[in-house]
Amino acid sequence: MQSQQELISFFNETRARSELICSFLETEDYVVQPIVDVSPPKWHLGHTTWFFEEFVLKPHKPGYKLFDENSAYVFNSYYESVGEKVIRTNRGNLSRPTVAWVYDYRTYVSKALQELMKSEELSEEILELIEIGCHHEKQHQELLYTDIKYILGNNPLFPKYNDQFKENPIEDFKAEWIKLSEGLYEIGHNTNDFCYDNELGQHKVFLDDFVISSKLLTNAEYLEFMESGGYNDVLLWHAEGWDWINNNKINSPLYWHKIEGEWHSYGLNGLHPVIPEAPVTHISYFEAFAYAQWRGLRLPTEFEWEAANEYFKWGSRWEWTESAYSPYPGYTKAPGALGEYNGKFMVNQKVLRGGSVATSKNHTRPTYRNFFHPQLRWQFTGLRLAK
Amino acid sequence: MQSQQELISFFNETRARSELICSFLETEDYVVQPIVDVSPPKWHLGHTTWFFEEFVLKPHKPGYKLFDENSAYVFNSYYESVGEKVIRTNRGNLSRPTVAWVYDYRTYVSKALQELMKSEELSEEILELIEIGCHHEKQHQELLYTDIKYILGNNPLFPKYNDQFKENPIEDFKAEWIKLSEGLYEIGHNTNDFCYDNELGQHKVFLDDFVISSKLLTNAEYLEFMESGGYNDVLLWHAEGWDWINNNKINSPLYWHKIEGEWHSYGLNGLHPVIPEAPVTHISYFEAFAYAQWRGLRLPTEFEWEAANEYFKWGSRWEWTESAYSPYPGYTKAPGALGEYNGKFMVNQKVLRGGSVATSKNHTRPTYRNFFHPQLRWQFTGLRLAK
Amino acid sequence: MQSQQELISFFNETRARSELICSFLETEDYVVQPIVDVSPPKWHLGHTTWFFEEFVLKPHKPGYKLFDENSAYVFNSYYESVGEKVIRTNRGNLSRPTVAWVYDYRTYVSKALQELMKSEELSEEILELIEIGCHHEKQHQELLYTDIKYILGNNPLFPKYNDQFKENPIEDFKAEWIKLSEGLYEIGHNTNDFCYDNELGQHKVFLDDFVISSKLLTNAEYLEFMESGGYNDVLLWHAEGWDWINNNKINSPLYWHKIEGEWHSYGLNGLHPVIPEAPVTHISYFEAFAYAQWRGLRLPTEFEWEAANEYFKWGSRWEWTESAYSPYPGYTKAPGALGEYNGKFMVNQKVLRGGSVATSKNHTRPTYRNFFHPQLRWQFTGLRLAK
Amino acid sequence: MQSQQELISFFNETRARSELICSFLETEDYVVQPIVDVSPPKWHLGHTTWFFEEFVLKPHKPGYKLFDENSAYVFNSYYESVGEKVIRTNRGNLSRPTVAWVYDYRTYVSKALQELMKSEELSEEILELIEIGCHHEKQHQELLYTDIKYILGNNPLFPKYNDQFKENPIEDFKAEWIKLSEGLYEIGHNTNDFCYDNELGQHKVFLDDFVISSKLLTNAEYLEFMESGGYNDVLLWHAEGWDWINNNKINSPLYWHKIEGEWHSYGLNGLHPVIPEAPVTHISYFEAFAYAQWRGLRLPTEFEWEAANEYFKWGSRWEWTESAYSPYPGYTKAPGALGEYNGKFMVNQKVLRGGSVATSKNHTRPTYRNFFHPQLRWQFTGLRLAK
Repeated sequence: MQSQQELISFFNETRARSELICSFLETEDYVVQPIVDVSPPKWHLGHTTWFFEEFVLKPHKPGYKLFDENSAYVFNSYYESVGEKVIRTNRGNLSRPTVAWVYDYRTYVSKALQELMKSEELSEEILELIEIGCHHEKQHQELLYTDIKYILGNNPLFPKYNDQFKENPIEDFKAEWIKLSEGLYEIGHNTNDFCYDNELGQHKVFLDDFVISSKLLTNAEYLEFMESGGYNDVLLWHAEGWDWINNNKINSPLYWHKIEGEWHSYGLNGLHPVIPEAPVTHISYFEAFAYAQWRGLRLPTEFEWEAANEYFKWGSRWEWTESAYSPYPGYTKAPGALGEYNGKFMVNQKVLRGGSVATSKNHTRPTYRNFFHPQLRWQFTGLRLAK
Repeated sequence: MQSQQELISFFNETRARSELICSFLETEDYVVQPIVDVSPPKWHLGHTTWFFEEFVLKPHKPGYKLFDENSAYVFNSYYESVGEKVIRTNRGNLSRPTVAWVYDYRTYVSKALQELMKSEELSEEILELIEIGCHHEKQHQELLYTDIKYILGNNPLFPKYNDQFKENPIEDFKAEWIKLSEGLYEIGHNTNDFCYDNELGQHKVFLDDFVISSKLLTNAEYLEFMESGGYNDVLLWHAEGWDWINNNKINSPLYWHKIEGEWHSYGLNGLHPVIPEAPVTHISYFEAFAYAQWRGLRLPTEFEWEAANEYFKWGSRWEWTESAYSPYPGYTKAPGALGEYNGKFMVNQKVLRGGSVATSKNHTRPTYRNFFHPQLRWQFTGLRLAK
Repeated sequence: MQSQQELISFFNETRARSELICSFLETEDYVVQPIVDVSPPKWHLGHTTWFFEEFVLKPHKPGYKLFDENSAYVFNSYYESVGEKVIRTNRGNLSRPTVAWVYDYRTYVSKALQELMKSEELSEEILELIEIGCHHEKQHQELLYTDIKYILGNNPLFPKYNDQFKENPIEDFKAEWIKLSEGLYEIGHNTNDFCYDNELGQHKVFLDDFVISSKLLTNAEYLEFMESGGYNDVLLWHAEGWDWINNNKINSPLYWHKIEGEWHSYGLNGLHPVIPEAPVTHISYFEAFAYAQWRGLRLPTEFEWEAANEYFKWGSRWEWTESAYSPYPGYTKAPGALGEYNGKFMVNQKVLRGGSVATSKNHTRPTYRNFFHPQLRWQFTGLRLAK
Repeated sequence: MQSQQELISFFNETRARSELICSFLETEDYVVQPIVDVSPPKWHLGHTTWFFEEFVLKPHKPGYKLFDENSAYVFNSYYESVGEKVIRTNRGNLSRPTVAWVYDYRTYVSKALQELMKSEELSEEILELIEIGCHHEKQHQELLYTDIKYILGNNPLFPKYNDQFKENPIEDFKAEWIKLSEGLYEIGHNTNDFCYDNELGQHKVFLDDFVISSKLLTNAEYLEFMESGGYNDVLLWHAEGWDWINNNKINSPLYWHKIEGEWHSYGLNGLHPVIPEAPVTHISYFEAFAYAQWRGLRLPTEFEWEAANEYFKWGSRWEWTESAYSPYPGYTKAPGALGEYNGKFMVNQKVLRGGSVATSKNHTRPTYRNFFHPQLRWQFTGLRLAK
C-alpha cells in the first residue's frame, strides 16, 4: 500500500500518461470502433475518468458536483449494477460527447481528486479505491495502444501512430530448456503491493516435472509452421479453432500482409517487412496451440509459468497458457459493482501471463493474470513452449 | 441543358452548399456510421468529390494529377466496375483520411473543375457529366441532412444540429378529395431540363377513376391509428411488415419517444413534443400501408401521384406510393459505370414522389422518382391517401 | 361456378391426387424441411385438410367434432388471425403427429365433407369455400412436387422420386418474335370460372409496341451465358442479385452439378446430363434478368405476357416477369382470415405467369398470377424474352 | 481389458441396447434435428455402426465389402480427417438413407463383426478398437435418450416416450457437509479397465481443505432461487451467462412450463407437475453457478469431486464442476482420426462428473470426465454444492 503522498504522484503520473498516449492521434481516431472488442480512445479516456467520479468522488467527496449527469450513462462499461450502460457495439456510433468535452471532463475530475487528496488524510478505504482506479486506468492504457493499433492497422491507408514506438524487442540469445522438478509450488500474490482479487490468495499447486523454454517463439519459427501447411492440417487444431480459421479465412497472424511475395506486418510505426528474429505476436490461443501440436510440444499452464518465471526474461508479450481462467481456492467477489471487475469473466477465457510492450511500467508482476477469449489476437500476445 | 456559364454558377453553388450544411458539425460527427444505410458526412463530402475526379477530371482534363492515389478506394461507392470499393458497413470504421484532408481534397478538385470550365469551350458530353455530378452532389446533400439527423438523433444526449432548421411545415387547410377521371395520362420527363435516366421516356399510362387527398397525413391522424392498436392488428400489415415491426419492436415513427406520458420527437432542432398538425414523417412504407388499410383507403400509385400532382402542394415529405420501382418502357442503362446509377436498384424498392424539407432547391420535379426499401424510415417520408 | 355435383367430383379428385403424389415417398421423406421455403410433405397434407376443417366444417357443419384439438395449432400456416401458428422454420422439427395420423385426419375430414355435400343443398357461400379449398390444395400439390424435389435433390445420395416423372418437355421449333401493337389491353379475370382475388378485376392497361419470344429459353442458350462469364460481370446484375450470387457462391441454376467436366442436373427421375434443348429451369429472377441484360433484351411485364399469351404455348415453366406483385385497381382483401390469402404478400415479390410441369391440370389460366421473391429457384421457373 | 469372449458378449449387449432404446419410437422420430446439439436417432444408429466399419472392418477384416460406399459420407461425424462429413446442422435434412436401411446396415455390420470375433484370435489392437467402439456406442446411447427427450419435449403435443422411464430418483435423506482435509490426492484412471485417454494418467493434485454436499440440489431448493428473483440479479451471473439468459429469455430449467400457475416439467414419461424432492436437472453451468453464488457457496472442482466421490452416492445427474476441460499432465492425442476423439474439444467446455439416469450401466466411473459448453442443458445435468 502506498502512502497518500506517493499515491498523489502515482495518480498524477497515471492521468498524464493516458493523455500522452493519445497525443499522437487525430480527433477522428478517437471516435471509431471497428470491432466489438476494440473501444474508441475517447471512450477509454472518459471511462477511466468516470470510474474515479463514480466510485471515489460521488460517494466520498462532500459537496462534489457531477461534471455532467449523462456521463455515467455513456462511459459506464460492464458495471451493470450501476445504471444503464451503452451497449458495447454502439460505442463507435457516438460522436458526442466530443473529444474536447472528454478532456474537460478529465481535467475537472482530476482536479477534484487532487483537491480531495490534498485536503485531508483519507481513510484506507478511499486510498484503496484511488489506487485501484489508477491500476484500472493503466489497464486501459494498454488497451489504448492495442485499440489504436487496430483502428489504424485496419485502415486501408495504414497510417503510422508514432515512428518511435518499438514493439519488437529481439531476444538475442539461443533458446534453452529450463527444467523444474515435481513438487508443491506456492502460487498467487503474497506481498503488500497492489494486486487484483483474482491473484489472491496464495495457495499450493503440485506440479510434475516439466521444462519450459527460455525464449519466446520467433516469427521465423512461426513462418516455418505456416509454410509447412499448418493452417491446413485439421489434426493440429481444436474443433472450435478449425471452424474459426475457416470461417474467418485466417492463414497468418493478425496484421500480416503478403506484398509482392514478402510478408509484411503493420506496427504502430507503420507497415514493414516481418522481422524474422522478433518474437511472434498477434496470434490467438488456437494458433499458439496448433503450433505447439505441430512441434509435438505444448503450452505451459499458468502455474508452470509462474513457478518458472524468474528463470527467463519476460515482458514484451502476453504469453498464452493452457490454463482456463478460473477462481483460485477461496476466491470471493468484492460486494457490489466493484465485484463485477474480474469474477464475472471466469468462463470461456484463457489465462495469459507476462506483460507486453504496451504494458505500463510496474503494471504487471509474476502473479498477474490476464485473460482473453481463445480467438482474440489484437493484444501483443506471444508463445513460450513447454513439454 | 444549361449553358457553360450557368453551369459554372450551378457547380459553385452546389459545392458551397454541401460545406454549408456541414458547417454546424463537430469533427467527430463527420466520422460515425450508426447503421448501414447512413454514411458518415465525411464520406459524402469525399465521395461527391471523387465523382468529379473520376468521371470528369481523370478522363477529360489533360495533365490532371490525382490528389491522392488512394482516394478512389476510400470514396468509391457502389460503382463496382471502377476498382475495389470500401464495403458500406466499414465506412464508419475509417478515421483516416481526416476531415481536414477531405476539405483539402474538395478545394483541389473544385479548383481543377473551375479551371477546366473556364479555360475552354467544353463538349456537350463533358458538360453533361459535370451537370450530373452536381445533381449527384445535391442528392447527397439530402442524405447529409438525413444521415446527420440519424447520427445525432440516436445519440443518447440528443444534441441539436441547428436551431434554425424547420422540418415541420404545417399545411394549414382542410383535406379534400381531388378527383381525376379515367383515361390515358402521359407519364415521365419530356422537357430539356435535367432529369435522371429512370424518368425517361415519356409514355402513356391508363388510369381508372381515382381520388387523392389534397393534404398530407398529420401526426394527429397517425396518433389515432397508434392509439387504436394499429401496431397490434396483424390484418393491417404485409407479412414482411408484421415480421419487421415485431422483430424490431416498432410501435411509433422513428425518432418518437414517450417521455412522461407525452410523445416527443427528435428534430434537427432538438427534442420537442410532437406537433399534432404537422405532417407525419419518418414512417416506413409498411406503416403507411397499414395506416391506409386501417382507414379502408390506399396509397396512390406513382402514376396517379404524377397525374394529379399539380392539384396539390407538395415538397415537404417524400410520399410513399404503392408502385414498385421498375423500369419505364424502353429504359436502357447508360454504358459503363454511370449505368450503375439507377437501374441496378430496380428490385425490392418502392417509389416515393415529391421531395422533402431536406431536398435542395430545384432538385426535385413532378417526374422525379425516389426509391427506398419498404422498411426504411430515416428519410423525411410522408403519406398522402388515395381511394 | 361449379354445380354442387361437379364440386363433389372436383373435391374427390383433388383429395386423391395429393395422396397419389405422395405415394412414391418413404415415411422419412414426409418429415424434413431443409430450407425455410420448403415445407415437409406431411405438413402440406395436414394443412390442406385443416383448411377444410377450419373454414368449412367448423363453422358450417352442424355438430361437427374436431378430429383433434391440437391439429389447428400444428397445421395452421400464415393465417395469423386464427390462433397461434407453428413458426415456419420449425415445421421440420415436428416428428408428431405422424404420417399415419395425417392420413387418418385426411380420411376423417374428407368423409365429413362428403357427407356435408351429399346431405343437403349448400349455400353459395359454402360451395365457394369448398371450391377455394380445392384450389388451395391444388396449389399445395405444386408445392408438394417442388418441395419433394428439394428434399431429395439436396440429399447427397440423389434418390429418385419416380422414374416416370417428365419435367423437361422440349419445344421442338425455332424461336420467333411475336409482335403486338401499342394500345389498350384488357387485363385480369372476367369469366365465371374460379379465380383468386388478386386476378380481379378486369381493367385496361396501355402497352407500347412490343415483341415477345414464341419459345422459352433453352439450357443450351443459358450455358452460353454461363460460359461467357455472365456470373462474373457485375454490370449485368441488380445490386441485390450480385450480393446474392456472391454470398451464396452461385454460378449455375439450382440442381446443376458439374461431374467429370459435364453439367448434370437432378430431376425427379434422378441425376442426368443436362438436356441442351430443354427449357432452362430453376433460375431466379436475378438470373433471368442478368441473362436478358447480357443479350440486350428484357423480361416481359405481366401485362405484355397476358396480352400475348394466346400466341405462344405455355405451361411447362413458370415464367418470370419484370412486374412486381401489386394490387390491381380496386383490389380489396376479403374480410377476416381468408383475406390473408394474397394481399399480405404484395411487396418485394415478382410475378410469374404461366404454369409448370408440376401444376395440376386446369389449375392455371392466362390471368393466374404466381409470385415469389426474386432469389427463389426451387419452383420450375423459366424465361421468355421480350424487347 | 476384457477377454475376446467377454468382448463378444459386451458387443452384442451394446448393439442390442441401442435398438431397444429406439424401439419406442415412431419412424418420424428418427429423422428430425430441432437444434444443432441434438442429432436424429437414425444418425446415432448409423454413426455408431459406421465407426465399427471404418475403424475395425475396413482395415482389419480381409475381404470385407462395404455395405454402401456412401454411408461413410452420411454417418461420419467429427472425424474430419476421414473424408467429408455431413455438416452437423444438416443431419436433420436427410430423409435418406431410411430407418429401415439403417437397421439393415446395423445387421450387416454386426454380423461381420461377430464373424471376425469368432473366426480367429484377434490382436490386442483390434480388440481395443472393438472395445472403444462399444464404449463409443454407449456414449451415443446416452445421447439417444437426451436427444429423443429434446425431440419429443419440444413438440407442442408433448408425446410420451415411454411410461416406464424413471428419470427422477429421489435422494431420501438430509444433505450433510462432507469434509476433506488439505493434501495431495491422486487423480485420474489407474486400473486395467477401459477408460478414455482424457482420464489418463494418474497424477497428484494438491487440494485445500474443502467440504462438499452429500446430496444433489433439489427442485424445491432451485425454486426458491427462482422465486427470489435469481434470474434477474445481474451480480449472480457470469457476463456471458447474463447475456445468454437475456437473449434466450430463460427463467427456469429446460422443459419447465408454468401451467395454470403451477410448474410442470416434461419427462420421457410425459408432462407432469415438478416433483419438489427430486434433484433439479436440465440446468446449464451458468445457472448452477448463479445458484451457488446466491447461496454464498460454490461448485466443486473436478478434483474435489473425484477425491470425495466415495463419500456420496452419485449417478442420476451429471454434475457440473467449476473445472474447465483441459488435458491432464502428459496427455497426448492418439495418432490419426481416433486422436480427434477427445483432445480437440479441450477449450471452452466445463467438466461434468458422475453419470445420469440415461447412462448405460457400467459406462461411467469415478474418473470419467464428461464435458459440455456452459450454456447447454439438454443432458440430465445436476448440481452438488461445495464450499
